[in-house]
Order: sequence, then C-alpha cells, then structure tokens
Amino acid sequence: MTVFNFSAGPAVLPVPVLLKAQSELLNYQGSGQSVLELSHRSGLFEHIIEETESLLRELLQIPDHYRVLFLQGGATLQFSMLPLNLATVRQRVDFIDTGSWSQKAMQDAEAFIQTNIVASSKADRYRSIPTDTIRSDADYLHITWNNTLEGTTFTSVPTVDVPLVADFSSSILSEPIDVSQFDVIYAGAQKNLGSAGMTLVIIKEDLLQRTPDRLGSYLRYDTHATHHSLYNTPPTYSIYLTKLVLEWIKEQGFDTIVERNRKQAASLYAYLDQSTLFSNPVAIQDRSRMNIPFTTSETELDEQFLQFAERHQLVNLKGHRSVGGMRASLYNAMPTAGVDALIAVLERFEQGER
Amino acid sequence: MTVFNFSAGPAVLPVPVLLKAQSELLNYQGSGQSVLELSHRSGLFEHIIEETESLLRELLQIPDHYRVLFLQGGATLQFSMLPLNLATVRQRVDFIDTGSWSQKAMQDAEAFIQTNIVASSKADRYRSIPTDTIRSDADYLHITWNNTLEGTTFTSVPTVDVPLVADFSSSILSEPIDVSQFDVIYAGAQKNLGSAGMTLVIIKEDLLQRTPDRLGSYLRYDTHATHHSLYNTPPTYSIYLTKLVLEWIKEQGFDTIVERNRKQAASLYAYLDQSTLFSNPVAIQDRSRMNIPFTTSETELDEQFLQFAERHQLVNLKGHRSVGGMRASLYNAMPTAGVDALIAVLERFEQGER
Repeated sequence: MTVFNFSAGPAVLPVPVLLKAQSELLNYQGSGQSVLELSHRSGLFEHIIEETESLLRELLQIPDHYRVLFLQGGATLQFSMLPLNLATVRQRVDFIDTGSWSQKAMQDAEAFIQTNIVASSKADRYRSIPTDTIRSDADYLHITWNNTLEGTTFTSVPTVDVPLVADFSSSILSEPIDVSQFDVIYAGAQKNLGSAGMTLVIIKEDLLQRTPDRLGSYLRYDTHATHHSLYNTPPTYSIYLTKLVLEWIKEQGFDTIVERNRKQAASLYAYLDQSTLFSNPVAIQDRSRMNIPFTTSETELDEQFLQFAERHQLVNLKGHRSVGGMRASLYNAMPTAGVDALIAVLERFEQGER
Repeated sequence: MTVFNFSAGPAVLPVPVLLKAQSELLNYQGSGQSVLELSHRSGLFEHIIEETESLLRELLQIPDHYRVLFLQGGATLQFSMLPLNLATVRQRVDFIDTGSWSQKAMQDAEAFIQTNIVASSKADRYRSIPTDTIRSDADYLHITWNNTLEGTTFTSVPTVDVPLVADFSSSILSEPIDVSQFDVIYAGAQKNLGSAGMTLVIIKEDLLQRTPDRLGSYLRYDTHATHHSLYNTPPTYSIYLTKLVLEWIKEQGFDTIVERNRKQAASLYAYLDQSTLFSNPVAIQDRSRMNIPFTTSETELDEQFLQFAERHQLVNLKGHRSVGGMRASLYNAMPTAGVDALIAVLERFEQGER
C-alpha cells in the first residue's frame, strides 16, 4: 500500500489478504468461478463458511455451547435484534453508558422495551469506564467493550447475575477475551475481521430459547442458528474475506498480533503524553488500543495537521464528526511502520513544519 | 471463465466486471487503498454510492419521487421490514400466491400483521400466474414478479387501488419495467445486480410517512432514506460491484441485454418443447426468462444428466432442493455461448451419450 490508512472502519486490511483475494478473484481454487459467483449452497462455499467458523472457534477459544452466526445489517441491526429476541421475559434491558455507541444501542432498544442506565461515565465526559458495582435484574446487561469515538475500553468484565451482552465491533480479535464470561458477543466485520457487510454474533445456546413465537425469520437468532447462517443468502464474499483475515492472524500468531497492538498503542500514547501540542484525554487505565483520539487545543490547528498528515500519506485521521479533532485507529492490520510514520509526522508538525 | 455457471444466485458475473474489480483490488483509482478499505464517509466512497444510484435511476428510469436505498439482509429481511413499516394503517397485507417465495414473504408478514391471499396458482401447481381481477383494501398488495423456483413470471402489472409491492430479486434489470406502476420494488443483488450482501429497495417517497414512531433505526426505511443509505456502514464492496455491473450494462446497452435475454431463453425453451426427453412444465405465456426449470421424467436420469453436464463444464444446474430436477438460470451475465453449450449437451444426452 502506498498510504497508511487510519480509518475507524471500514479499515485497513492486511496486504497478504488483499493479494490472495486478488489472485483468486476470477478463479477460486480451480473451480472456474469467482467466490463472488459461488452459490451459497455449493460445497465450495460450505467449506468456506465452515472453515471461517472453525478458525474463529480456535482463535477465540469459543466453547461448544456457543453458536457462531454470520449475519448482515451491522451492529445497528443487532441493536434491534437483541431486545426483540432476548428481552422477552421482563421486557427490560440495563445499559452501562460509555458514550455514543452504547447510547445508540439503548435508543434502539427503547423502541421495543424498557431500558435503564445502571452506570455511566457521562459526568466524566466519557473519558473513562464506570467502575460502579452493577446490580441488575433486567433481561440482560449491555456494554460496549471498546468505544470507537471516545477511545476507551473495558479492561475487566462486569460481574452481574443476568446475561451479559457485549458489542466488540472495534476490538474483536485484537486481544484475548474469555468468551465464557459473556452471553452474547457481537461485532461488525469492517474493523478487525474483514469487510463491511458481515456481522458476527456469538451467542450462548440456551438464549436461543428466549425468542418469541411471533417474529420475522431474519430477525430470529434461532433461524440462523438452525440453518448454520444459510437460511437465506449470507454475505458470501465478506465471509470469505473474514476467512482470509483469520488465516492471516493464525499465520502471524494471535499472540504476536496482540503484543504488536500493545506496543503500537503504547508508543503512540507515549508520544502524545510527552507532547506539549497534542494530547489524548482518556483516563490512562481505560485507554483503547484500537482507537486513539487526540487534539491540539485549536480546531484550526487540528485542520492544519490533518492536511499535513495527508500530504505525508497518512489518511483518514479525522476524528468522528461528533467529536472533531483527530483519531488514529490501530486495528490488527496496521503495520508498525504506519504508527512510526504517524509519530514522525506528529513530531515534525509539533516542531513547526507545515 | 472456464465453466458456465447456471446458479440461481449468487450467480455468474460479467467477466469485464471481475477483471476491473481484480485490477482495482489493491489500489482504487490511485488512492493507495482498496475499495474494501475505504471509509464509507470518504469522498471516494460517497462518489461510488452516488454513481451507483445515478446509474440505477438512469437505467430503470426511476422517477424523482422514489427513493433508492442500499440495505442488507436480503429479500428475507424485507419480508419483515415491509409489514413493520407499511402495514401500519389497516395492519393487513394482501398477497398473490405464486409459490415458494411469495409464501415465505407471507409467512414472515404473518408474524406481525394479518395476511390474506387474494389470488393463487396453487391449484395449477404454480405452473402459471393467476389472472384473477384483484380487489384489495389492505395496506398493500405483495407480488413476487419472477418466481425463481417455479420458473414463472408476471408479464403485466396487476391493477389495484392499494400500494403495490414487488419482489424483483431474480429479474431486476433483465427487462424494462415501469417503476411508476409500483410503490415498492426490492431485490437482492446476488442475481442480476452484483454480489450477495446488498439489497436494493426502491420506494415511493410518500410511503416513508407510514413507519410507526417505535421501531429500531435499522428497520426503518426513513432512517436509510434520510441518511442516503449511510446511517450505518453499508455493504461498501457490494455497492461498488453493483456500480461496475451497472456500468457494464450501460456499455453493452440495456436494450441489447434485454434482447439477448429474450433470445437465449427462447432458444432453450424451443429445444425443451421439441425434446422427447426433457420438458418444462410452465404455461407458455408465464415462462420466466431468468430461471428455466426442466426435468426428464425420472429422478435417476435427472441425476445422470447433472453429472454429464458437470463433466462438460456446465455447473449449478441442479434444481432447488424443494422441487428437484434441473434449473438453468440465465441472468444478464450468462453469455449466449453458455446457453448454446447447454443445448448442445442436452442434445447429446438425449441422443444417448452418458
């Protein structure tokens, strides 16, 4: 790649994955067909989806009593599917409010059931993760593990007596997690898993019983579980790309990637913390290793920096519309060279280059 | 391509589209980024989605008071979204029953509202399209324009006083349609529009008012209309592929493609009708030009033929699990050489070759 892409998602993909996809684009494994043309009922595609699930189970050590579903509609459709399927006993869901995405999840749930905030870092302007002891008797507790906009992350799993549902969209497979501590884990693929258009849902089998009798087939988790994500045509090419990404992670070694993510984030934070121009506002213990927001103290200077960075082939560093400033997303596929280049450009800008 | 792929979907794509996608896979228009890596908020992607809509509007002559939405979840998610958004006045939907897919649409609608069959070709074992005069005072009338399994197609638009909603998944852009005669047209992309993972919805603007106050954001047509399909991350690569397919259609000439589809289907039907071994059961006036089912009279012979065809590089000719036999899907991207090869292989098999 000729640029370093810091986009929050869709985001940078590993070059070997893109090269493999390119080489197979017209003829997948001698079949004379593109993966884009494969029937989802063909043996070739069935092998792809099975292999994708098997790699995920291996890398995340997913216990057998969890089902792995490949859906569509992004995390946003999950914001509806979760309450429709799971908030059917008490019709009430509790949320830990950690900012923008947890609020979006809550607003959608409110269209169907009652919601309640059991902890919030709003008073801290979302620069930390709440540490309150959680009490809940709702149908489930929802958390957003990594907060893409605010640059925060949970580092320990809240202890509750109700099922725990976690949005892992921007940090899945960037660090080890103990799946057995969660009841549902979901994630859009366009950050660490592959391309836009596929949503991973890992759900504890016993929760499939909660779905009410009356609900359209696509919206039911049990439909997709029963049919192994092949009830209707799944996003075949996105699933194939996820397979390639998982193969790449396995080849590199998951531990190696986790360690690289730690080091890359640490070096960017180290630079920001000693800088007299740039700064990151997040409480040190709650800092995300995937999404690192930072600013100068002036909007105009931020804009100048973004242009300076772009002239040096560092793209998509603009912060989210709602918060402004800059944001560097350092997903698994971001090479160390990219982080080094970013730090070098930050230094040059701080020293007065324009 | 080294084979001819008769899959009902995901299906054959035009070779020039695959070559273009391959050449741009690592570096889209000199950006140093793959389309797979483009932020959906980037200027580059915004141009792709705008161009896709503009080409669709041009080719289908979509009037200005219709909105074009690029969604996910396939036609199957539409089976839920349609009643949730549009059956909000009388909470009742009428259906013309033309077989498997119209029944699936109806079963999903029943999870939310009352349904009613106003005409059916069940008595004819779905070998024709009902010609009954339709009376409806429901919230809308739903039809499946082209029936992928049964090999039938509507050839004229039913006249009704209520909004008309049509599933065009397997025939969109294969023939001219007068969009203004419909209120909603929807189609999965994996047959004539591109790849699995994108669903096209063309909806008359005034229907957007029908959505109830309480409904999750992804499930609301007005969410996607207001945000030009960018409320959340759309299936970016599928949209890009649709753009390439539309450019290819425009280059070939839409009329040329329509004429080719007619000729190709006509030559396969002509062979089947004179054959003493193979036959197609559909009433002549209602025959699909996209999906052509046929059988010998013996299951075992069908199986032998499928193996014979596969040895001659003709793949995915197996009929749908629920009906058996064979089915040739002749979407826009199927070259005349593919249909000629199929007829030649049918002839050789009929003459006793095995």
